[in-house]
Amino acid sequence: MSEQFTPIATLGEFGLIDRMVERLADLPRSEDLIEGIGDDAAVYRAGGDMLHVLTTDALIEGVHFDRSFIPMQFLGFKSISVNVSDVAAMNATPLYATVSIGMPRNLSVEMIDGLYDGMAEACKMYNMELVGGDSSTSHALYISISIVGQVHERDVVFRRGASVGDYLCVTGDVGGAYAGLKVLLDQRQAQIDLGDDYEPELDAHQYVIRRQLRPTARIDMVEAFRGAGIKPTSMIDVSDGIASEVNHIARRSGVGATVRIPALPFDPETRAVADQYLDEIDAYALFGGEDYELLFTINPEDVDKVDALQGCSVIGNIEESSKGVRAMSPETGLMPLHPTGYQHFEPGEEPPEFNISVDED
Amino acid sequence: MSEQFTPIATLGEFGLIDRMVERLADLPRSEDLIEGIGDDAAVYRAGGDMLHVLTTDALIEGVHFDRSFIPMQFLGFKSISVNVSDVAAMNATPLYATVSIGMPRNLSVEMIDGLYDGMAEACKMYNMELVGGDSSTSHALYISISIVGQVHERDVVFRRGASVGDYLCVTGDVGGAYAGLKVLLDQRQAQIDLGDDYEPELDAHQYVIRRQLRPTARIDMVEAFRGAGIKPTSMIDVSDGIASEVNHIARRSGVGATVRIPALPFDPETRAVADQYLDEIDAYALFGGEDYELLFTINPEDVDKVDALQGCSVIGNIEESSKGVRAMSPETGLMPLHPTGYQHFEPGEEPPEFNISVDED
Repeated sequence: MSEQFTPIATLGEFGLIDRMVERLADLPRSEDLIEGIGDDAAVYRAGGDMLHVLTTDALIEGVHFDRSFIPMQFLGFKSISVNVSDVAAMNATPLYATVSIGMPRNLSVEMIDGLYDGMAEACKMYNMELVGGDSSTSHALYISISIVGQVHERDVVFRRGASVGDYLCVTGDVGGAYAGLKVLLDQRQAQIDLGDDYEPELDAHQYVIRRQLRPTARIDMVEAFRGAGIKPTSMIDVSDGIASEVNHIARRSGVGATVRIPALPFDPETRAVADQYLDEIDAYALFGGEDYELLFTINPEDVDKVDALQGCSVIGNIEESSKGVRAMSPETGLMPLHPTGYQHFEPGEEPPEFNISVDED
Repeated sequence: MSEQFTPIATLGEFGLIDRMVERLADLPRSEDLIEGIGDDAAVYRAGGDMLHVLTTDALIEGVHFDRSFIPMQFLGFKSISVNVSDVAAMNATPLYATVSIGMPRNLSVEMIDGLYDGMAEACKMYNMELVGGDSSTSHALYISISIVGQVHERDVVFRRGASVGDYLCVTGDVGGAYAGLKVLLDQRQAQIDLGDDYEPELDAHQYVIRRQLRPTARIDMVEAFRGAGIKPTSMIDVSDGIASEVNHIARRSGVGATVRIPALPFDPETRAVADQYLDEIDAYALFGGEDYELLFTINPEDVDKVDALQGCSVIGNIEESSKGVRAMSPETGLMPLHPTGYQHFEPGEEPPEFNISVDED
């Protein structure tokens, strides 16, 4: 065992990823491997013109979820969705999933049934199959899913394909999952404060709570792109917030970007939550994460097709790398946009309540 | 949330697997999927005559390993090996791996480096690549690996292919990993009892300790089979002990089997450990597990080829299902052989120290 002890906290968000890539640098490299560590999923040739993508993502009790918040069926559904979202980010469609579960002893058979039912529901929605797994006892509930997907080689999209002049776009609406988390945390506090007098106030927040607890991956948009003849130049899924994801695309593509804050798409319910808590709604979208929408760039000549699609918003532009990643709003003008939605492994700090995973696919 | 609470303990070893299969029964089924849940790995068409296999397996601190026993580099190596072993069991070779790690905060950067170095060492040995991953903070160290492998469709081997009259064989030697565990547990007790006077006594047990802490998957035998023109009729890897694995083959193939106890192959160091502790050595092989050898069946006409290979032992015969799974020794004669190496989720009991995973691939 090494005598040195350097805390993980000293590595930044990209530190763990870079460390892994470095330690694995001199492995044999197959000609069939097109993309390894560094995108939403690995990509390799599967035969003929078809590529397969492979991704893995875990949900850990006490880190990514609180079992008292989330029904088991939603948790099963979410565990599949967060992985399918990585497949969608490659412009691919999912085929097969395996699941590895660590089960604490206070889990009942009924809870496991709920978990499997949620996974089955998600597999049906995404038209894919659960083909294998592994389960053990564990101290906390741990769900790790891996998914194999497929995409024709002419359709595959990476994080690294954005060019200066491209438009930056996002599917659906953003910030809702974080708004849902706020409502749930607030309700938990009310429950603690009021005890037996507590009455749940969730009816006005059904949409944002569902965004948090039962997100859907945008495979429908992958199909819509194909139908409309659109191929994004780069793409990533919004798991850690727009700020983090734009920085990933910029870093991998060697470009800069500007996000126009007034163009960010919000659901009215998300706005209502931000108003209720006197929060800046932009922060929900930029730093909140877990929306599982697709952030992508397009060639300017495709902008009419994207407009015609509906359900997509143009939120910015790709620029020279020297300009960095910036946000622009009428109130503040241009300002640097760092991926500081959640600081991972911050020195001396306790972990934030949720969503401190570092995506290294 | 369901109002019923049925403890997981009420499900037997096959209970969790059957439960999962049942909950997922009405999912769409792709024509390209050849084998789903129920073998060492899932198998699907990848293009042309090539099949891909997909498997996942996790190692959890306090369940599968004790961090005070195992150097991080060995743990990284083992985490890859146990998955490659499932690929080997399909007569396939590994291509790509993803890793999902839950890291407790008391892990250092040096420990993570050791873990990655061990994974890199294993990837080199098995000629495969680590192509993606995911890491989060966690309460205990949790390592889940998924591997994609390949095999020509004429070469793939399942658990379900054994026929009456086939010979039952095993690669290498068995029981060593359990002997290593015994030595390590004994040394831990000595350390507790003797305190500062403790001096490690490990030199005489290097082989068995390595079998426990740094097992290798028998991809070399998959290649040897191919070279010798041998195609096993069924195959499984020895992760839970011979007794459990023979029962898996028998159950899936619809046959019975007899294991000839005197034919079980042991290393002299394994024998020495069993003698030292006055243990029945047969139990190490039958119920110990974690040897990661290959248990397989062959057509009788291939027996000369298997003998010529070296490093394989014929240990029994496949019989009619009505005869069940049995063991035979001169001392006891014929007796039923149940897969009771480790009882999983036993009612009211504490978990055994190690290796209580339930393989559902």
